[in-house]
Amino acid sequence: MNFLTWMGAIQQRSEAALDRLLPAANIAPQRLHLAMRYAALGGGKRIRPLLSHAAGDICGAEPGRLDIVATSIELIHIYSLVHDDLPCMDNDVLRRGKPTCHVQFDEATALLVGDALQSLAFKLIAEHELVPDSKRQLAMVALLARAAGSRGMAGGQAIDLAAVGCQLSLEELEFMHIRKTGALIRAAVMLGAHCGVPLADTDLAGLDHFANLAGLLFQVVDDILDAEASTVTLGKTAGKDAAQNKPTYVSLLGLPRAKEKAAELRAEAHEGLARFGEKASRLHQLTDFIVDRSF
Amino acid sequence: MNFLTWMGAIQQRSEAALDRLLPAANIAPQRLHLAMRYAALGGGKRIRPLLSHAAGDICGAEPGRLDIVATSIELIHIYSLVHDDLPCMDNDVLRRGKPTCHVQFDEATALLVGDALQSLAFKLIAEHELVPDSKRQLAMVALLARAAGSRGMAGGQAIDLAAVGCQLSLEELEFMHIRKTGALIRAAVMLGAHCGVPLADTDLAGLDHFANLAGLLFQVVDDILDAEASTVTLGKTAGKDAAQNKPTYVSLLGLPRAKEKAAELRAEAHEGLARFGEKASRLHQLTDFIVDRSF
Repeated sequence: MNFLTWMGAIQQRSEAALDRLLPAANIAPQRLHLAMRYAALGGGKRIRPLLSHAAGDICGAEPGRLDIVATSIELIHIYSLVHDDLPCMDNDVLRRGKPTCHVQFDEATALLVGDALQSLAFKLIAEHELVPDSKRQLAMVALLARAAGSRGMAGGQAIDLAAVGCQLSLEELEFMHIRKTGALIRAAVMLGAHCGVPLADTDLAGLDHFANLAGLLFQVVDDILDAEASTVTLGKTAGKDAAQNKPTYVSLLGLPRAKEKAAELRAEAHEGLARFGEKASRLHQLTDFIVDRSF
Repeated sequence: MNFLTWMGAIQQRSEAALDRLLPAANIAPQRLHLAMRYAALGGGKRIRPLLSHAAGDICGAEPGRLDIVATSIELIHIYSLVHDDLPCMDNDVLRRGKPTCHVQFDEATALLVGDALQSLAFKLIAEHELVPDSKRQLAMVALLARAAGSRGMAGGQAIDLAAVGCQLSLEELEFMHIRKTGALIRAAVMLGAHCGVPLADTDLAGLDHFANLAGLLFQVVDDILDAEASTVTLGKTAGKDAAQNKPTYVSLLGLPRAKEKAAELRAEAHEGLARFGEKASRLHQLTDFIVDRSF
């Protein structure tokens, strides 16, 4: 199967898993469930589910288990978008080509949608049997919680907020992104791998190194896209980093150097995967896709 | 030890556990951690930790484990207060006698505080060894997630939102409260019990029945207090249910009948505890305290 066919298949099964695992819109409270489904379904690159499935390939993880883990991580990602779009944060009206959740419904509902999506993520990863060793699964839940929390994604967003209009150093920018985007990207890779046959500690550390690079890479490319792409291609408001005077890799390094940085990170990430040979080919291709995507 | 001494001791250890388990304010992102601590520490009745510890008494649960479970539940409760106070929800400025989190900090920070407190709750309950059987602990995590989510607390708040200005039936009011307040009260009791020696299924079902009654009782009393107490005694804005034209037990039943309802629920809750004898004495006393409290 070529990469694009594989990717399409995983995106499709990720959408189907979300559809199946989200509460139906006819269950009370209906409006909340409708809004949760509105925010979660019908779009999205599903980069994190793709990473989980590709990482699961390395250790022969069962696709059905990967669906659960991937859905949990994607729900955390989606909740963060819903809250991030709120007027008190980025105040954005467009997401994945549709009105944002608080525009389509209302602010209070969007707030509760985010809250409930986070709870649902932890419900799913805790209530399905994912690995034979329950102790290991508890560690997986804790990994997701750390990635989402104040020293992970939510913390990264807090640093991002404080940085608007500030001159950050490259080091400070990376400190932020390792948390804001990187923590969940890393969790997607590691939780995918945890669903399969346990890796040796050195292999696990190698994969973790790759996952951290992939997180940074994703953000560098995101900054480049935000600076270059149009709103229509992006499906969200483009150029808003510059408009909000937010520090980005592009604003700090300039576009050519940011592109060089992306190329360097890609090469280093590929190197990190070499130890896994053919089994990491999806992860290898996905890394390329992250760099070469135009959305 | 008399009840009030016991209660003071549990409140103190709950505060200490929160203090210990929340990230220190000097860890980055400092402002977020400061705001999380501001929202969580220094006040609160700690009713849910009290319920966990009292329920743990029934099955000889270790207090150190109960601290973890109680802190997780209290963090979910606190996050819901922080989000509930936001301008797009109740728009409240006073909580536990202090400015609410978004007034003291800012809206975006309060949003992230709530988000990060929820993640922290799941981190704590997953990463500490609470029971020898990890499978059972996974079920505990799932129980907490269900209680917090769209069919629990967050769902109750969504129904509450939709009910402002509406005429609800008593049945609809209970449907809302079983979720909004009841789900987490129930989780506090059940998770406390799960920390100890496993109960027989019939005993567990009996305790669950008690927990549901306790949740409703708590809400009926809350409505009575909101109608009767002053802002100073309550430490939060009093009379706001009526001001917001929210349906309550008092608005539906009138004050005397609401008080009768509280008395009936108390009696039924006490009955439900009878099977546990002396071991349930703290839970029995706590039920009385919930009814007789003036805050």
